[in-house]
Amino acid sequence: MGRTRFRGGPEGPVTRRQLLSAVGITGGAGALYYAMGALGLTLTATAGSSAYHAPRQSELARGKRVVIIGAGIAGLACAYELRKAGYNCVLLEARARPGGRVWTVRDGTVETDLDGNKQVARFAPGQYMDAGATRISQNMVTLDYCRELGVPIQVFTTQNANCYYFAEGVGPLSGKAIRHRTGKADLYGYVAELLAKATSQGALDQYLTDQDQEMLLEFLSDWGDIDTTSDGKKEGGWKYSGSPRRGYVEPPGAGERSGRVGDPYPLSDLLRARLGFRFSDEFDYDEAMPLFQPIGGMDRIVRALVDAIGAHRITYEAPVRSIRTTGTGVEVVFDSPDGKPRRELADYCICTVPPQILKDIPANFSKAVREALRAPTPVSAGKMGLQYRRRWWEEDDRIYGGVTYTNLDLTLVEYPSWGYQGDRGIIHGYYNFNDEAERYGNMPPAERLTRALQQLERIHGAKVRTELESSFSVAWQKTRYSQGGWVSWQGGDPVGPREGDPQFARLLKPDGKVYFAGDYLSHLIGWQAGAFLSAREVVTDLHTRVLATG
Amino acid sequence: MGRTRFRGGPEGPVTRRQLLSAVGITGGAGALYYAMGALGLTLTATAGSSAYHAPRQSELARGKRVVIIGAGIAGLACAYELRKAGYNCVLLEARARPGGRVWTVRDGTVETDLDGNKQVARFAPGQYMDAGATRISQNMVTLDYCRELGVPIQVFTTQNANCYYFAEGVGPLSGKAIRHRTGKADLYGYVAELLAKATSQGALDQYLTDQDQEMLLEFLSDWGDIDTTSDGKKEGGWKYSGSPRRGYVEPPGAGERSGRVGDPYPLSDLLRARLGFRFSDEFDYDEAMPLFQPIGGMDRIVRALVDAIGAHRITYEAPVRSIRTTGTGVEVVFDSPDGKPRRELADYCICTVPPQILKDIPANFSKAVREALRAPTPVSAGKMGLQYRRRWWEEDDRIYGGVTYTNLDLTLVEYPSWGYQGDRGIIHGYYNFNDEAERYGNMPPAERLTRALQQLERIHGAKVRTELESSFSVAWQKTRYSQGGWVSWQGGDPVGPREGDPQFARLLKPDGKVYFAGDYLSHLIGWQAGAFLSAREVVTDLHTRVLATG
Repeated sequence: MGRTRFRGGPEGPVTRRQLLSAVGITGGAGALYYAMGALGLTLTATAGSSAYHAPRQSELARGKRVVIIGAGIAGLACAYELRKAGYNCVLLEARARPGGRVWTVRDGTVETDLDGNKQVARFAPGQYMDAGATRISQNMVTLDYCRELGVPIQVFTTQNANCYYFAEGVGPLSGKAIRHRTGKADLYGYVAELLAKATSQGALDQYLTDQDQEMLLEFLSDWGDIDTTSDGKKEGGWKYSGSPRRGYVEPPGAGERSGRVGDPYPLSDLLRARLGFRFSDEFDYDEAMPLFQPIGGMDRIVRALVDAIGAHRITYEAPVRSIRTTGTGVEVVFDSPDGKPRRELADYCICTVPPQILKDIPANFSKAVREALRAPTPVSAGKMGLQYRRRWWEEDDRIYGGVTYTNLDLTLVEYPSWGYQGDRGIIHGYYNFNDEAERYGNMPPAERLTRALQQLERIHGAKVRTELESSFSVAWQKTRYSQGGWVSWQGGDPVGPREGDPQFARLLKPDGKVYFAGDYLSHLIGWQAGAFLSAREVVTDLHTRVLATG
Repeated sequence: MGRTRFRGGPEGPVTRRQLLSAVGITGGAGALYYAMGALGLTLTATAGSSAYHAPRQSELARGKRVVIIGAGIAGLACAYELRKAGYNCVLLEARARPGGRVWTVRDGTVETDLDGNKQVARFAPGQYMDAGATRISQNMVTLDYCRELGVPIQVFTTQNANCYYFAEGVGPLSGKAIRHRTGKADLYGYVAELLAKATSQGALDQYLTDQDQEMLLEFLSDWGDIDTTSDGKKEGGWKYSGSPRRGYVEPPGAGERSGRVGDPYPLSDLLRARLGFRFSDEFDYDEAMPLFQPIGGMDRIVRALVDAIGAHRITYEAPVRSIRTTGTGVEVVFDSPDGKPRRELADYCICTVPPQILKDIPANFSKAVREALRAPTPVSAGKMGLQYRRRWWEEDDRIYGGVTYTNLDLTLVEYPSWGYQGDRGIIHGYYNFNDEAERYGNMPPAERLTRALQQLERIHGAKVRTELESSFSVAWQKTRYSQGGWVSWQGGDPVGPREGDPQFARLLKPDGKVYFAGDYLSHLIGWQAGAFLSAREVVTDLHTRVLATG
């Protein structure tokens, strides 16, 4: 392969390289890419992806050295894809481990944060905590990589009807742990009742035909489990008065135990508790169930990538000191593990360092790139793993995975979607963002634990303390070489770039021989899929350039 | 244990048996049970169940022989629980296998139905089809048995945002495979829009305070992803105009691929397609996500029960010919595997034969019991396993488990919640009930397959045919020793007994020395949990009687 010559027109044979170089110069990268396709040069179909074609083996690629800064998902994916074409890739990783924000904490994991807090994880054998990425949606390319790499997956449950809403300072429902199923049944029941009443009263006559109104009422009565009151009047006779969907006060069983349903909460109380604001999480494109995770921890993906690339290609504990495009390629200076600066010379560089860190690394980037790197701002995020000797959330609460939503600083409490019914397990006592994450992150780990247990106890009782074995927490904004959970291009929510954001656009193009990749250059920020897709874009660009210009 | 004597009042020691016998005679079973509890006699706490206490080891129990007819879940659970107290249990099973309607079909499974259709399953190694029970809700006692028996579990996905609604003859959306996420986003969007409009117009002023209306609007705008139109008028300015929640025409990716959302379907079309009638499945007490299944097939529960009971206690291929309470106990005549009738004499009998079959077995039951056994009517149910050489639903449709709803005779199409991203897999090409199940069940298996593929092709295209390796189907109403998927006490939906149904109540009590158990005597009909709970009731009653009367 790659050595085959293209037999051209009357002037005799030309090399593919000569041809593609000509096309690239006259028609640009797009024309070039299509020309390559026509020559059968680049297109290796990848399952599950219609848009991406991994670069094919090529003589040109084999002659090129690419230094990749960062062995997180973006960097590993770049190396993995470029290796398919034969590029000579090396990776420089500042940490002593690969994976970046894909970080599975196990017994013995040691981490010292930017404040100097040192933690050593003391988890039981087989127990682990995914301190960073935890889940993969069906639509995400990450699943395709799991398939391609042979990483087995299992369901990650986010929405669980048995999990709780817990809020304080919200009126009559303050301090009550309310099951998702209960809150949803009641609020949907009231929404159905109110819309049915309005419809019956003619309030929608200007919007809907009579026939549509009839069908709407039929739908609402099923969906909201509402009924007409005994007087059966057309005017507002609809009523939600509870439903088995909300759960039982006495569950149905055998014999005479037919089950007893409780009374619904008042609508006004439910609205004040704001629990309905979490329903939309369930429909979110990226968060709708089911989601997935590798069996054994998210770092199985990282390990599989490292194995595929070749572990010897990665230099660890090698933080980069400078990046310079030179006349002949790129020069990267980094600290070697022995403390002495070393230099890596390559034809190209792909830099996956987060922008909030990269902006301060000396480099001969253009002014525009420097400015662009300052645009995204880091988002704080924190998580705490709590190992319990007993899976009380399953045994006592009948919660098998999923998320409890709170308006406490905890924000989210996550129950593990693996190891069901085992001897012990690790819950995420909190998973929080922004102010809440900073409040926790500013404390030393022991204080974080004290505060988390105080808050958790209000939801789950004393067992959160009595059954505890160990804990480990991460504050991503305080974590060296990450300094944030992810970034926002808009200074807050939403985190993605505004349409046509010139700073975002600037970083999609290389600066000299340096390319930029990472989830921050995607529309899936904070997801591994964003990093994978960014890597694919950069790999395609770089390969196209190499094929065009040699 | 059991030999300890209760040291009573001034008359000196009495045996526990004497005491309990007296309590039982004067105060009935209820008083007796409490007396036993007070004596610490019966109470062995079982994880996850607050109401049930397994019978404790007892000398009285060890002297008793119990013949259990049927080695389905009810029968196995009775034996398993009675064995805890030391009862001498034997089981008679008409089939050559245990489990009843818990039936995991694997390569080599042979079944001949009541019409004489013989099928031999030809599945790949490791592949299987749960032809009967497939899933367990978090709330169900079945999970407690999984824990107690050491049966590992995994998630069973029912609701999947990427599955389809597919209907024909329903207007403009006929023959369109519409993703759950799309149908839900649109219909919720319109419901929110309409209720917001009605609220803004004052149609709810008589029901809600101004403050509640404000909070309701805020909830609706988040939940339905609706916005006020640019003119911002209070009168009806709310609008649903699509949402990323419905999915993308072009999905978001890296670089400039920000994603493009399509236009919503018209409300009128959605209402005509009736797809919203499936939303409530998600909130159903028993069906809300997440659900679970044993790793390796539902029969892992059956195997674990058999192992715990002792395989030698079960006689297979032993259909019962008669059941008689005698002066000293009970006599059960059954066909032995060699074809000769045999007789089993025992102190008590627990009969778990489905009522539609039991009613025709000669027995000296009371007239009331005979009548009661004729009350429930069987419900037809059918399922077809289709083994494919490629998991096209994952690779092409990005569907990892879950259910596609149709208004075709197929009713439900189920995608496997295990073996993700493997080489092959088995989908349930149909899972149907009542008329639809009968239509399929009345055909020989080859015709069922032809019809199912014709219908499936309309949803999924030609690959349902080209990638097929083998199939196996079950029609429960045609299945010997089941003759139905489950029963209905009301001749249709709902299937449970009406409150105070005297026929149902009659079967909760023994007839002479014969007790009745099965999911049909619970309020969880068609679920393993109903069978487990019925077994617990009967075991408790029987044990109480034995302790009372010796």
